Amino acid sequence: MSDYLTPAELPQPKLKRTNTGFTPNQIIALDAAIPEGAKHIWAKYSQLKPLNGNHHGQDLESKLVHDRGAFEESFVRHVETTLARNMYNCDNLAAYQAASSTVRDALLVDWANTQQKQTVHNGKRVYYLSLEFLMGRAMDNALINLKGRDNAAAALSDLGFNLEDVLDQEPDAALGNGGLGRLAACFVDSLSSKNYSGWGYGLNYQYGIFKQKIIDGYQVETPDYWLKYSNPWEIDRKEIQIPVDFYGHVYEDYDPNSGKPKKIWSGGERVLAVAADFPIPGYNTDNTNNLRLWNAKPTHEFDFTKFNAGDYQQSVGAQQRAESITAVLYPNDNFYSGKELRLKQQYFWVAASLHDIVRRFKKTNKSQWEKFPEQVAIQLNDTHPTLAIVELQRVLVDLEGLEWDHAWSIVTRVFAYTNHTVMTEALEKWPVDLVGRLLPRHLEIIYDINFFFLKDVEHKFPDDRDILGRVSIIEEGNEKSVRMAYLAIIGSHKVNGVAELHSELIQTTIFKDFVRVFGKDRFTNVTNGITPRRWLRQANPQLAKLISEKLNDPNYEYLTNLGNLKKLEKFIDDDEFLTKWDAIKFHNKRRLTALVKEETGIELDPTVLFDVQVKRIHEYKRQQLNIFAVIYRYLRIKELLASGVSIDEIKLKHYISKASIFGGKAAPGYYMAKTIIHLINKVGDVVNNDPEIGNLLKVVFIPDYNVSKAEIITPASDLSNHISTAGTEASGTSNMKFALNGGLIIGTVDGANVEITREIGEDNIFLFGNLSESVEEIRHKHIYEGVQIPETLQKVFDSIESGAFGNPEEYKVLLDGIRYHGDHYLVSDDFDLFLDAHIKLEKVFGHHGGDASDKDHLHRWVKKSVLSVANMGFFSSDRCIDEYAENIWNIEPLNQ
Amino acid sequence: MSDYLTPAELPQPKLKRTNTGFTPNQIIALDAAIPEGAKHIWAKYSQLKPLNGNHHGQDLESKLVHDRGAFEESFVRHVETTLARNMYNCDNLAAYQAASSTVRDALLVDWANTQQKQTVHNGKRVYYLSLEFLMGRAMDNALINLKGRDNAAAALSDLGFNLEDVLDQEPDAALGNGGLGRLAACFVDSLSSKNYSGWGYGLNYQYGIFKQKIIDGYQVETPDYWLKYSNPWEIDRKEIQIPVDFYGHVYEDYDPNSGKPKKIWSGGERVLAVAADFPIPGYNTDNTNNLRLWNAKPTHEFDFTKFNAGDYQQSVGAQQRAESITAVLYPNDNFYSGKELRLKQQYFWVAASLHDIVRRFKKTNKSQWEKFPEQVAIQLNDTHPTLAIVELQRVLVDLEGLEWDHAWSIVTRVFAYTNHTVMTEALEKWPVDLVGRLLPRHLEIIYDINFFFLKDVEHKFPDDRDILGRVSIIEEGNEKSVRMAYLAIIGSHKVNGVAELHSELIQTTIFKDFVRVFGKDRFTNVTNGITPRRWLRQANPQLAKLISEKLNDPNYEYLTNLGNLKKLEKFIDDDEFLTKWDAIKFHNKRRLTALVKEETGIELDPTVLFDVQVKRIHEYKRQQLNIFAVIYRYLRIKELLASGVSIDEIKLKHYISKASIFGGKAAPGYYMAKTIIHLINKVGDVVNNDPEIGNLLKVVFIPDYNVSKAEIITPASDLSNHISTAGTEASGTSNMKFALNGGLIIGTVDGANVEITREIGEDNIFLFGNLSESVEEIRHKHIYEGVQIPETLQKVFDSIESGAFGNPEEYKVLLDGIRYHGDHYLVSDDFDLFLDAHIKLEKVFGHHGGDASDKDHLHRWVKKSVLSVANMGFFSSDRCIDEYAENIWNIEPLNQ
Ligand SMILES: Cc1ncc(COP(=O)(O)O)c(C=O)c1O
Ligand SMILES: Cc1ncc(COP(=O)(O)O)c(C=O)c1O
Repeated sequence: MSDYLTPAELPQPKLKRTNTGFTPNQIIALDAAIPEGAKHIWAKYSQLKPLNGNHHGQDLESKLVHDRGAFEESFVRHVETTLARNMYNCDNLAAYQAASSTVRDALLVDWANTQQKQTVHNGKRVYYLSLEFLMGRAMDNALINLKGRDNAAAALSDLGFNLEDVLDQEPDAALGNGGLGRLAACFVDSLSSKNYSGWGYGLNYQYGIFKQKIIDGYQVETPDYWLKYSNPWEIDRKEIQIPVDFYGHVYEDYDPNSGKPKKIWSGGERVLAVAADFPIPGYNTDNTNNLRLWNAKPTHEFDFTKFNAGDYQQSVGAQQRAESITAVLYPNDNFYSGKELRLKQQYFWVAASLHDIVRRFKKTNKSQWEKFPEQVAIQLNDTHPTLAIVELQRVLVDLEGLEWDHAWSIVTRVFAYTNHTVMTEALEKWPVDLVGRLLPRHLEIIYDINFFFLKDVEHKFPDDRDILGRVSIIEEGNEKSVRMAYLAIIGSHKVNGVAELHSELIQTTIFKDFVRVFGKDRFTNVTNGITPRRWLRQANPQLAKLISEKLNDPNYEYLTNLGNLKKLEKFIDDDEFLTKWDAIKFHNKRRLTALVKEETGIELDPTVLFDVQVKRIHEYKRQQLNIFAVIYRYLRIKELLASGVSIDEIKLKHYISKASIFGGKAAPGYYMAKTIIHLINKVGDVVNNDPEIGNLLKVVFIPDYNVSKAEIITPASDLSNHISTAGTEASGTSNMKFALNGGLIIGTVDGANVEITREIGEDNIFLFGNLSESVEEIRHKHIYEGVQIPETLQKVFDSIESGAFGNPEEYKVLLDGIRYHGDHYLVSDDFDLFLDAHIKLEKVFGHHGGDASDKDHLHRWVKKSVLSVANMGFFSSDRCIDEYAENIWNIEPLNQ
Repeated sequence: MSDYLTPAELPQPKLKRTNTGFTPNQIIALDAAIPEGAKHIWAKYSQLKPLNGNHHGQDLESKLVHDRGAFEESFVRHVETTLARNMYNCDNLAAYQAASSTVRDALLVDWANTQQKQTVHNGKRVYYLSLEFLMGRAMDNALINLKGRDNAAAALSDLGFNLEDVLDQEPDAALGNGGLGRLAACFVDSLSSKNYSGWGYGLNYQYGIFKQKIIDGYQVETPDYWLKYSNPWEIDRKEIQIPVDFYGHVYEDYDPNSGKPKKIWSGGERVLAVAADFPIPGYNTDNTNNLRLWNAKPTHEFDFTKFNAGDYQQSVGAQQRAESITAVLYPNDNFYSGKELRLKQQYFWVAASLHDIVRRFKKTNKSQWEKFPEQVAIQLNDTHPTLAIVELQRVLVDLEGLEWDHAWSIVTRVFAYTNHTVMTEALEKWPVDLVGRLLPRHLEIIYDINFFFLKDVEHKFPDDRDILGRVSIIEEGNEKSVRMAYLAIIGSHKVNGVAELHSELIQTTIFKDFVRVFGKDRFTNVTNGITPRRWLRQANPQLAKLISEKLNDPNYEYLTNLGNLKKLEKFIDDDEFLTKWDAIKFHNKRRLTALVKEETGIELDPTVLFDVQVKRIHEYKRQQLNIFAVIYRYLRIKELLASGVSIDEIKLKHYISKASIFGGKAAPGYYMAKTIIHLINKVGDVVNNDPEIGNLLKVVFIPDYNVSKAEIITPASDLSNHISTAGTEASGTSNMKFALNGGLIIGTVDGANVEITREIGEDNIFLFGNLSESVEEIRHKHIYEGVQIPETLQKVFDSIESGAFGNPEEYKVLLDGIRYHGDHYLVSDDFDLFLDAHIKLEKVFGHHGGDASDKDHLHRWVKKSVLSVANMGFFSSDRCIDEYAENIWNIEPLNQ
């Protein structure tokens, strides 16, 4: 009788919102609830593969990959509707937005399908918890993995655009500091490419790592407002909301059913975790896993107890404050700073992730908790997510009512922990007071875990009194604190380091007592790796193509079977091949030359040796060692010139021409690292403007090093520096990237350098420096006997102190740290060894580059380059993921 | 030679981002720059009307309106891509999101076209500056205005959804407090419908007016997080960014060209205004204007002077704070509160809007400033945007280098100001100190404006010394302040009130000196109006349909020619018509009954008189008068019952059955208003639960009154209350809405009630109360001779003080305000008159309702209802807009 129904007359929604993936039973039930006519209409227009399996022709994904017209149609529609623009005001940015929306639409097909397949299969899943995912750009990667790059390029060209220009509009997703975050990004790529059911869980920071500007030689940080334009890769899942509580208090109550006492955590502050999903397409497979990043949002539940008249403005303010939890990534790399907001980030993230995991488990398994470790593996990327252990114990005991021991046996079968450092300044230790205030119930549980653990230890070592204090989760002292690494070890069934040397070191130093307690079996090693899709195919398309031709592998299958590179060794005497190889390196160096010119104004000569050190600026990574050596070289050249030696003679007899290329961010509060940046830039100012020097030496600092720049820098290096003090760098991954792109390495016997050497052969890498076994002793000597500054280094110090690179006061901390404060990083001890290594390697490189006539020299270097690449198969992150899957997670790929 | 170009090799973007609309010359130039082949591809897939005029078939807009399949296809695509969902998990909310995205896509066609048409025409435009736009829901309105409602309903039904359910998912856009904001919303609807080139400018608050909950009878405010899901009606225009500065200092410099001194405003804090555009579709026309709402965002320009090492965390915080400027709407209605953030909002908004307007002007007119007032009219909705006057003067003098007098003559031809109140507590007066700190250059300009103005006044009235102090923009006193209304009058060429009585009052009270200074001509009246599309067709579809049938107007042309309603008078004796009319009212009352049940649990009898008062809670609007009368009625009924009179006899001889229905929000800090809400709810608790009373009397308070609820409540009222103290309500607009929906009015001789009476006839409205002429004298008497509480009211006070409605302490302020503090709002004086009016009206309504046999009674009321509606044509906001256009803005419609 009416156009309108009253609210009460309104039918209730037929379908509830559910998360991704339905069980077969759900599909049957839902299917039955939808009228036949409606189903028919949906099928007519649907672009998805039907979930009930009845195929209906070409879906959106395959169309966008193979059908130029379909790409064009979707592009135009996005310009006109999504962007509200038209042909006349579609610039490259708009073209990127429309093209990426089109690719996103296609990805969604695989993504939806993958979730559905995994739900139906209902096998074990792995969840990779990482506070950082340094993804970089997504569009090129998605096109490569979907194999739709050519079609997109053709379609864009039809519409008047150049794919490269369009790709260049994408801002980096820079939600990480360095190696740890980029590792997580490579791992999710491999999880998808190797057909594992594996999700990443992290935080969707509004501001990623700061943008670095260099002004007057100083690092200046500006916020990275990367979401200025909406992010097409983010699937908004605002309906997935998980409440997370902080503060409040704990009281005891009785379970109404069992009559047993039970702890209740109540009151406090509530924040919502809202999901944003990022599809992670695999290479050469439809498998498209999910990366779920949480946003903090205010709750809008009404808190009765808090209300009093007139506090409305304040309550709106509180709501806004909730969002600050995921506002900004902490810009510290390998350094613990102990901020309350950081702990809030950690708990917010693990609580949301864990409740999401538990919800998914219960969907098919109800409360069969015994099955939980058969269905769920959780990898803790460093100690940042350690509270997940406590949270799961809390969920099982407090909320699900399991007995403590039963719960704990489940917990320890679920978690595994990856350690990333042995350096004490990087180990997380949260003050007990802070934990107790922020998470009162969790502190109780930590104490209980510790109590039961120490009881066991006491039982095992009744005569060793000291061990209890050493292994206790609680560090006593002025300010009691919670040792997160210990908690992580105790709550996990496996603990791994990230390179052989590092895994060995953790067992013999910081965790040695735990090896006694839990036995050697709890500890293992998984050497890091990198994804060859991004770091070879995407960053170095010409090299990737040459390899695919040489391996007779037109479909680039070697990108998921990186061991196949080995076959390149066959061509080690193929002159034409070596010449092509070298030409590609030269092309890549030209590309970098252009970037350097654009970013710094400095003109490099692409024929000289490109000697690169790009990575976070850190004392232990020893950019100071490198820049001191550059200064030494400059001083020597100046001496030679002053003594009448001509520049050509210098080039012939003493020093080859080279460009020292630096890049990397320093944590904003890390004064020493910032001083190093300043020195590099000031040395550059002097050297680059010295008219006597010409192309014999250049020093550049590329500002704002990030993944996209790494993709240009890495393929362009002749030589890269991985020169950390032995025993400090857990693995390094950029060493792998450079080697995979045919750059040689100068490095210390540290981290993954050791295994790279084993794989590619000692002849193809330039190692130097004191070994990790000696480091402790040398440090001890420094302190008790003083530091010996070699003559060479003294020269450098003298020139710095003379004001050659600006006010020497500014560099005092740097020099004093070495001279008077124990030279913790052994710069003085390794300086001459470093210079020697250079002499050696320059002999190999000498007269390489532009002069193609000198085949012998050319081949010396290029052959090392080819042999490096040929033997880098081991360092694919696919191999890492297989090792984790087999040795730690116990999961199998879910084949198509 | 390469897959990749170096950055330097990359071609520069061919097309720059531009804002909406191209000049014909631009189109020719742009067209020439695009390759023919690319143009061909674009044309093949484009869904827009081509900007260059070459038609190419059915566009998206007409398809979505007329083609069910096209709607369905677009819907499914949005579900699968925009929402990343599918048939199985598409609930009503997802269906709303997909359907609204489809409608949005269609609107964009008209929107782009309209902008283009207006740019090419290059005529005068009007800009309506309003700090509030209380839009309510958009989808139903868009479907009605596009005439696509039937097609959408059919398509949704095909897909398994009900349009009404889907519409019901939309959250209200509640970016306003009440009448002022809703007026702005009606005005933009009329601007589009009447084919004017007119934009709205406002702020895109993240939190609109709070949501009101009633708990234990108290109002509780919770934040309105209306953007929880993304807003399909918002066109993201992140590339339109206007920098807005605050704080800093002013210094004098010399113009390098002219050598003349010149003021520079520098330093301070910079925030970006980023545009969000909302298409406003006209009814029965393609004209679709733009409502531009600004978001505050951090700038990412690097401020060199501010940098110092280590303040990175802080600087991120500052960036986040920028967003707080547009975080929340101030919840005060007709009340000035003087918060710094509010002044920041105002300047942020007017600066961004004005610079946008100036930019658009300069695009075609360059610096021909004399043309500015011929191209631009700016209407100031209340004094909130008064700083626009100062800002334009600053732009012209400081930035464009015009002479002061020339600039000022332009400024005053551009602006016009609408006053909305004569109540002093609502008049804005900003402290000089605050203005000087936040906007140092603006304060100087205000002083200069004042100086020149006062010089003129002195010249005109050399013997009247006092007038200078009375009209000065600067109010002297302990805290000097800027009188914004005075500044608005001085800077405008027209000042209007919003109803005849109100326009008269401002000229004889608060602005009477200005009438002497500027003459009567500067002052005028434009009586408010409402849009009949939303407030008749959308809110009351059955009545709208009946009218269209009766007027033989199947296309509802009367909705843009509301005078046509007059023809309904012909049917005043058509019994069948009257019966249908009454049945529709009954149907609407049932709809409200269901809403009340859902919201409050209270069951109303739809046959009783629905006596409604919904609007902001304010002492001047006198909800207290209404609730006191309800209490009196209850007490009398109880007395009669106690004295043995039966309930049926009471109904026959004394009181008809009625439901008193209240609704409205109180400002969170407005204690008196909150007390009134509490009293209403407590009276409801008592009356509704009194078993003796039955349906004879019910009292309900509907929580969270908003536009969507108004759309259900308005068509369901038999009688509505507009009972403000005479002279306090400027116009009222809900009075018009009720009358247009056939509800009768009980009201004072105030605001637009006066003109409504003139239009519909004194017999069809129930007026009562002291007149505005007497108010001042009565108030004076109250203060000097005390307040006389009539016996009737005393009874009410006694029962309240006896605790009949809870703790009497809680109502003390309310009663004391009347008894001891001068009864400023004349409740005591009008109380008995109000009771009398009820006796009179109840005679008319008596035995109306369910009992259809009593035709005579029935007709008495229904005829008044029909005559009301028939004579409401004047109150269409289309008529207002025509009056503004002709008398104030001097613009013409731009016909299709
Ligand atoms: C942007 C960025 N930062 C840091 C790293 C890690 O470098 P390293 O292994 O040298 O610390 C990488 C990749 O390896 C990277 O791409
Ligand atoms: C939600 C809302 N609030 C307030 C008003 C204004 O009411 P009044 O004119 O009664 O103040 C209206 C419309 O008239 C409205 O829809």
